[in-house]
Amino acid sequence: MSRKIHLALHPYGVGGPGQHGLWKDPSIAKNASIDIRYYIEQAQAAEHALFDALFIVDSQFINATYPPHYLNRLEPLTLLSAVATHTTHVGLVGTASSTYNSPFNLARRFASLDHISGGRAGWNVVTSFDTGTSRNYGLDEHLDYATRYGRALEAVQVIRGLWDSYEDDAFPADVERGVFLDPEKLHALDHVGEHFRVAGPLNLSRSPQGQPVIFQAGVSEEGRNLAAQVAEGIYAPGGSFEEAKAYYADIKRRTAAAGRNPDHIKIFIHGGPVVRGTDSDAERRAREIFDEDNDFDASLALLGRAFGAHDFSQYDLDAPFPDVAHLAERGGRTGAAKIIERARAGGLTLRQVVQTFQEYRRSPFVGAPGTVADTIERWFAAGTFDGINLAFRNNEDLTWFVDAVVPLLQERGLFRTEYTGSTLREHLGLPFPVNRHTRERNLVGA
Amino acid sequence: MSRKIHLALHPYGVGGPGQHGLWKDPSIAKNASIDIRYYIEQAQAAEHALFDALFIVDSQFINATYPPHYLNRLEPLTLLSAVATHTTHVGLVGTASSTYNSPFNLARRFASLDHISGGRAGWNVVTSFDTGTSRNYGLDEHLDYATRYGRALEAVQVIRGLWDSYEDDAFPADVERGVFLDPEKLHALDHVGEHFRVAGPLNLSRSPQGQPVIFQAGVSEEGRNLAAQVAEGIYAPGGSFEEAKAYYADIKRRTAAAGRNPDHIKIFIHGGPVVRGTDSDAERRAREIFDEDNDFDASLALLGRAFGAHDFSQYDLDAPFPDVAHLAERGGRTGAAKIIERARAGGLTLRQVVQTFQEYRRSPFVGAPGTVADTIERWFAAGTFDGINLAFRNNEDLTWFVDAVVPLLQERGLFRTEYTGSTLREHLGLPFPVNRHTRERNLVGA
Repeated sequence: MSRKIHLALHPYGVGGPGQHGLWKDPSIAKNASIDIRYYIEQAQAAEHALFDALFIVDSQFINATYPPHYLNRLEPLTLLSAVATHTTHVGLVGTASSTYNSPFNLARRFASLDHISGGRAGWNVVTSFDTGTSRNYGLDEHLDYATRYGRALEAVQVIRGLWDSYEDDAFPADVERGVFLDPEKLHALDHVGEHFRVAGPLNLSRSPQGQPVIFQAGVSEEGRNLAAQVAEGIYAPGGSFEEAKAYYADIKRRTAAAGRNPDHIKIFIHGGPVVRGTDSDAERRAREIFDEDNDFDASLALLGRAFGAHDFSQYDLDAPFPDVAHLAERGGRTGAAKIIERARAGGLTLRQVVQTFQEYRRSPFVGAPGTVADTIERWFAAGTFDGINLAFRNNEDLTWFVDAVVPLLQERGLFRTEYTGSTLREHLGLPFPVNRHTRERNLVGA
Repeated sequence: MSRKIHLALHPYGVGGPGQHGLWKDPSIAKNASIDIRYYIEQAQAAEHALFDALFIVDSQFINATYPPHYLNRLEPLTLLSAVATHTTHVGLVGTASSTYNSPFNLARRFASLDHISGGRAGWNVVTSFDTGTSRNYGLDEHLDYATRYGRALEAVQVIRGLWDSYEDDAFPADVERGVFLDPEKLHALDHVGEHFRVAGPLNLSRSPQGQPVIFQAGVSEEGRNLAAQVAEGIYAPGGSFEEAKAYYADIKRRTAAAGRNPDHIKIFIHGGPVVRGTDSDAERRAREIFDEDNDFDASLALLGRAFGAHDFSQYDLDAPFPDVAHLAERGGRTGAAKIIERARAGGLTLRQVVQTFQEYRRSPFVGAPGTVADTIERWFAAGTFDGINLAFRNNEDLTWFVDAVVPLLQERGLFRTEYTGSTLREHLGLPFPVNRHTRERNLVGA
């Protein structure tokens, strides 16, 4: 089997959504989410394990009910730049909003990270999630789906154009001839579109990857279509084996329909493997983690995020689930719709809806090393993913996976035994994007 | 003498404005401006010399005529984050535009750098310079002075408000009581102003300095007033002894008039010291540098920057200096006015104006170590500066200054012999800004 599994590490500091109890774990520093040493250690652990990338999520609105890691964490690009010089191979994927950043700034910052890291930068394009965020950027209401995704698509196109401002050989720096820049190889963009007007050129040369890798996390119809058009990596929603398989097939189909090679979009599912020496020890550990996180108030607050940070504590817990459908358009529409559907189908109260959040749902990747390796192999072979975004409870859980499961995947030819390239593109098997102006020039010359 | 001189290092990579020939220097890597190792080495050299800060300038528009370092350089914040973890004491001051960034993003990125660096971040607030930049951000014309500086002032106020979102002790992280965050110590901003509406709170805790240090580079009337109101450091224009003295007195006066302690604004003049064993060797070296940079076409292009990247190659070089006064409002008004005044007073042609740019003007800090130390002492004692922004031609020039002049300044009690603090605020003798909500709480409690 020549196709390999890709693995990314997803550090959650003192605890992301649903990890309400993680900050109490004595092995995790109480300030982990703002301590650059924590991220450097995680990145070095990922690199030691030959993972493809470190993946940093983000959000830009909080209130006091938010998960600990969200309340107080470093900004992804400054974080990843600091991590870059302490690692040599692992990819560095950072999240940034196309809704609340201008393309020129994003183009510069990710190209800069690509230079600093020697070709390991990835941009996870998000359109941002809730009305709370919009109020941090001067807007009363979050933009609707169509506008956000239209803007995201145009932003990626503009940014890729800016990344091609200089051809790869634009700087001869020839002292004898007195030529630093070859001005023929510097190109303005002069973009005029629906959402942006950007003249260019970018004041930064082509980076080692040519262009940083574009990630995306599309779930909605608009999100899936955006992914099919421009994404090279997807952070896919979780779900059952069947759901993952359907999502995978859908994205690959849409990508082909958009005229792209479906191998050039790598789909990562979310996995929180729990591994111990025996299946029963692993089950016990998974249950322990679940118990640590069980917190009704925190789950009630978390419910609000899918509806644009809506405050559900205002409702009677034992009355029928409130009518909040209208809030979903400016929140996370797909997730919100699922919740509403579940409440309606079951005739659930608000309390019962929160309780369904809190039911123990076993991750598929729990067990002894051989069990977990078997499950991963089965899911991979069936076409449910190209890669896994790994989130571990703590370093002991990470070490179990790296020391006991990774060698089994390697023995089976499913995971690399050494880095064969040095850039994120090379790790993911993605082609180097030839500069558009160079391509044109070569066509004319041919 | 207890008042000490502050020193900042200003790395120009392959050559900033006027340094047209620097890229040809065999001791400078041709890709220095995009090589993070160059910046790390410069920062470590600055720290080894006990300097207060590394200072990174920026701009966001280029065409092929721009100076080599401007054509292709790293973005300041990603650059400084990478440098942060390779240094422990030196301050890290980065330039960012208040015109083309939203306050929420700037607040996060600089606070993040302050966390990553352990309290060494500074923000050099610029309003951006030319119409070329505006066209990279969707505007056809650059904002006028009043709008730009009004926006800059409001941006700093908003950002400082966001930096106070959490009180210093907002995170007890008390496992026994089950309290991670004390919600009483998280504060929304709810700012509604002329230029911005920002709800907050920021999703990042108070950084080690409380608030990163605010730098500014005001020359115009508007710029000087902004500095007097909010700046803690100023990157002052160059000029003669008399000009520097007048500028210094003016800024200190305006700062006092704004109700602030004039000691809490540190004025840095630009200095390019050239030191060798004897005065005549140093003069020879200064002349050599001048000759390396002499380039008529590059000087003609540079002239255009003060007029919003205006293209002067369209005019007859031997006709009277063209009427371009109307371009200055959206360029660098003060510098442009000086050029126009000089051309008018002398009845100069365009060629002659460019030639006055190219005349050899001796820096005051050229000579044997004792000569340079004497000049620095005299200027400092006379109240022309609090600090010097040092730009060196190459590492040999830097080493002469550090090894031969700095010890003399130390012997005379004018410069520190060790770092006595670990934050940029401490190096500069600036007070720690007490969180506004804590202050209010204490007032109520008192």
